[in-house]
Amino acid sequence: MNIVSMIEKTIASKPIYDGKIIKVKVDEVELPNGKTAKREIVNHPGAVAVMAITEDDRMVMVRQFRKPLEKILVEIPAGKLEPGENPETCAERELQEETGYTCKTLHHQASFYTSPGFADELIHLYRAEGVKPGEAQPDEDEFVELLHVTKEEAQRLIENGEIQDAKTILAVYAWKLDASS
Amino acid sequence: MNIVSMIEKTIASKPIYDGKIIKVKVDEVELPNGKTAKREIVNHPGAVAVMAITEDDRMVMVRQFRKPLEKILVEIPAGKLEPGENPETCAERELQEETGYTCKTLHHQASFYTSPGFADELIHLYRAEGVKPGEAQPDEDEFVELLHVTKEEAQRLIENGEIQDAKTILAVYAWKLDASS
Repeated sequence: MNIVSMIEKTIASKPIYDGKIIKVKVDEVELPNGKTAKREIVNHPGAVAVMAITEDDRMVMVRQFRKPLEKILVEIPAGKLEPGENPETCAERELQEETGYTCKTLHHQASFYTSPGFADELIHLYRAEGVKPGEAQPDEDEFVELLHVTKEEAQRLIENGEIQDAKTILAVYAWKLDASS
Repeated sequence: MNIVSMIEKTIASKPIYDGKIIKVKVDEVELPNGKTAKREIVNHPGAVAVMAITEDDRMVMVRQFRKPLEKILVEIPAGKLEPGENPETCAERELQEETGYTCKTLHHQASFYTSPGFADELIHLYRAEGVKPGEAQPDEDEFVELLHVTKEEAQRLIENGEIQDAKTILAVYAWKLDASS
């Protein structure tokens, strides 16, 4: 199957919501077979996430309440990109604001879409090296608790459902793979 | 920090959109410090994804056009849960519909939220065992191309950006970890 035979051409696009963080629209598309269909689409500014491993081989994580789930999750530090912001700058800023940690260098680990079926959110994941603790400066509406998690604890938190966040499980697996290679 | 000091209490909830797949609402919440804030929330029915490894150690993947990104992505087979559907039944159904493959058993690998900051989509990831090829029966509006990817190819597709989907990278890492343990 070639690329042209997969593309869905936009016939009409209806804006639904223009919010502070997300936008929502419904596109009417022409399918490769000539039929039409509706596509509900969420636009998101994108985000960064950081794997910060301390000198004693613990991953820096935060425990925080997530309103869409009405649940507290354990996640790696992350945050939305400001308009036009460089992802690396954002990663350094979010790591320091949320956890207080600074780092010497950042390496790009992977970039991935979180929900390609309905949203365009792209997360850039970085590995922070030479991390040093400091004082956190969370946003006014951010309430987070800092954790320092060993590989064994991370595996246990995944198994007992406290780590139930895609980017964080992906980061823990990357960390374990790195150690096993 | 205890749990109570993190929870955001809903003061008001405004429905924005009630679509075929997603719902959108804006909640006004009371923060732990007594201030208020808005939370833009997307509700999603949840989904399943399947790691299907063939006898010759290749992962079954599909190449498909994703309208929110206006891009073709390589992903593992996945699909939305129907209302009340058992995730395991859904995983078997989606695997067969999209790829034609059937399996003897399914094992739960992990469940994860894809975008906990703004959406409640939860993906249940299964590992299919005893897989056998068959005839695909894609949905009327689904146009997918089947791929059989070795571990080395999967790593290359991640590095060159053809695999740029969170659940698929997570699945490839899990596959590699399994092999290295």
